[in-house]
Amino acid sequence: MKLNIAVLPGDGIGPEVIAQAVKALKVIAMEFDHIFTFDYGLVGASAIIKTGNPLPQETINLCKKADAVLFGAIGDTKFDEDPDAKIRPEQGLLGIRKELGLFTNIRPIIAYEDLLNKSSLKVKQIKDTNILIYRELTSGIYFGARYISEDGNTASDVCKYERFEIERIAHQAFKAALSRKRKLTLVDKANVLESSRLWRRIVKEIANQYPNVKVNYMYIDNAAMELIINPRQFDVILTENMFGDILSEEASVIVGSIGLLASASIGNKYAMFEPIHGAYTKAANKGIANPIASILSAAMLLDHFGLYEEAALVREGVDKSLKLHITTPDLNTKYDNISTTKVGDFIEDFIQNPDETNLN
Amino acid sequence: MKLNIAVLPGDGIGPEVIAQAVKALKVIAMEFDHIFTFDYGLVGASAIIKTGNPLPQETINLCKKADAVLFGAIGDTKFDEDPDAKIRPEQGLLGIRKELGLFTNIRPIIAYEDLLNKSSLKVKQIKDTNILIYRELTSGIYFGARYISEDGNTASDVCKYERFEIERIAHQAFKAALSRKRKLTLVDKANVLESSRLWRRIVKEIANQYPNVKVNYMYIDNAAMELIINPRQFDVILTENMFGDILSEEASVIVGSIGLLASASIGNKYAMFEPIHGAYTKAANKGIANPIASILSAAMLLDHFGLYEEAALVREGVDKSLKLHITTPDLNTKYDNISTTKVGDFIEDFIQNPDETNLN
Ligand SMILES: CC(C)[C@H](C(=O)O)[C@@H](O)C(=O)O
Ligand SMILES: CC(C)[C@H](C(=O)O)[C@@H](O)C(=O)O
Repeated sequence: MKLNIAVLPGDGIGPEVIAQAVKALKVIAMEFDHIFTFDYGLVGASAIIKTGNPLPQETINLCKKADAVLFGAIGDTKFDEDPDAKIRPEQGLLGIRKELGLFTNIRPIIAYEDLLNKSSLKVKQIKDTNILIYRELTSGIYFGARYISEDGNTASDVCKYERFEIERIAHQAFKAALSRKRKLTLVDKANVLESSRLWRRIVKEIANQYPNVKVNYMYIDNAAMELIINPRQFDVILTENMFGDILSEEASVIVGSIGLLASASIGNKYAMFEPIHGAYTKAANKGIANPIASILSAAMLLDHFGLYEEAALVREGVDKSLKLHITTPDLNTKYDNISTTKVGDFIEDFIQNPDETNLN
Repeated sequence: MKLNIAVLPGDGIGPEVIAQAVKALKVIAMEFDHIFTFDYGLVGASAIIKTGNPLPQETINLCKKADAVLFGAIGDTKFDEDPDAKIRPEQGLLGIRKELGLFTNIRPIIAYEDLLNKSSLKVKQIKDTNILIYRELTSGIYFGARYISEDGNTASDVCKYERFEIERIAHQAFKAALSRKRKLTLVDKANVLESSRLWRRIVKEIANQYPNVKVNYMYIDNAAMELIINPRQFDVILTENMFGDILSEEASVIVGSIGLLASASIGNKYAMFEPIHGAYTKAANKGIANPIASILSAAMLLDHFGLYEEAALVREGVDKSLKLHITTPDLNTKYDNISTTKVGDFIEDFIQNPDETNLN
């Protein structure tokens, strides 16, 4: 298969972790006789520094020409601390989600057997947890009208949803549930928000078309608790943009580190793959950033193009690295100083020689 | 002291748990020679059934005449399942918060020594956690304009904040921090929301007036994770309405049961005290509802009127009940069938005879 991949490393630890994902994809291409090409573009704070724009038109063009986008991370503490900044790295990420129409964000939450005791939660609590979060990604309060009064004393944001925006992701989530445990939980705040009531109404309608999927409805406050006290109750979680942001980052505690969480953002024409962690400016260029979320995002990319065997091999490599403690310091209690690159190298070696790779 | 308390038991388990809080207050009045009077009002689904209105004018009048309000819970699964209901129990609760101007909601999160192993989290994770959440309660997306299009296919909610709404609660939160560990965390989503940037800007200004308080800023998605992986980093958390709703219910996992979380809602003229749990219709009238959140809310009421010794005694009663496993089934792994009333009776006895109360 020929795949033209746009790579946007972004800020902070983005470039380091994305380099490992690219390495994994390159060795997959070699082993399976695919042709993957990689074209790099600017986004986020690094794009602001070089071009004044967090999402240069050139980057958009690059992504639209590509078969898929591999995204690192954006953000910079400098901007976080300045609420008055008009140009912000996040505009790069939000802009690209909107420009490419990536309305469905899929975030798998899997409690890895080898990491169970790394979690803040008790092992018995999280064992066998396997959740797929479907987060709406191009609407809601992220993209509604914003307002700041001239005197700077009043500000507002609008959370708006339209029927078609809910329907298209809901169908995808229901279909995903069909191939899993056939359970779907809609998370909303329908006891307060009109937009949540729209979600609930539409999901109820659509549920009739999927009689084999058991649907339940949960308020976001309650879901934030239930995710911790009984995560195994969930199969597919469907939710709007902001609640999905909160729940998915919270869910990282089940997996043991946010450095493990991959995601796919899918639209009708384009697809982007990115770790859910941020740019962690403080950890940049120290070789301590966990590349696994990026590498698993590359595996989601492979799955997206039907390269299931390839994706499975990448995941096996990740599993093996976890089993053998070839992991960055966020996860490692056995070895010191296993660097970002070293983890990437190990997984690259594994892909070449799945049966021989061991600690060396 | 003479206190006239408006009691709004509400729906589901509300009446059962509030009865225990009233019992505790009555025996406190007796032991300390106070005169507490209790007047009951309707709110929520039970008010809808009897009057068609989730917040009858009579109830508002009752609360405005009173020195404080003791609130149970509202909600009914019947309404939860019907996104088309125009009249909803929640309007009773939101209406009363607005009518009484209860803009500051205070929710203490304390990891009780005797309950550490009840939590889904590892003991070492939560030990010594003591957080005070300051949640803005009368503005934000809870009270912004709502819209639903005539064809029912578009819906929106507005999250709006004004300077004075942020300032008044921020000052209270900073003052609280001064009497604690002098740390304040503002939780927002300033990388996306204009209203969050307003919060961040104003809190930064106000921080200058409290040089002894260490302030930090955290995005809500990150906070939802940090609350679980490192809860001890927090002292006072200040946040807007919706984020406070989510974080405080999530934080119940630290305490071990949402049945333990009390809250105070304070305005310039009025004050209301309520457990943060909901109506749990399914658990109603079974004698299994945990009354401790309500009893601790009564303790917060006593504190509010400067009755510190009285409040402390109520809390000691609660501690003792936890130590001796006189708790409802949500917490109890030792005894079966300790009912809501039995817990209330135990704490009542303890208040009368702090030195003699034991398991009987
Ligand atoms: C960086 C930020 C704008 C982004 C979001 O809120 O969507 C991030 O938290 C995420 O989850 O991808
Ligand atoms: C019942 C509901 C409207 C309420 C809220 O969201 O504020 C509740 O969850 C709470 O936290 O007091």
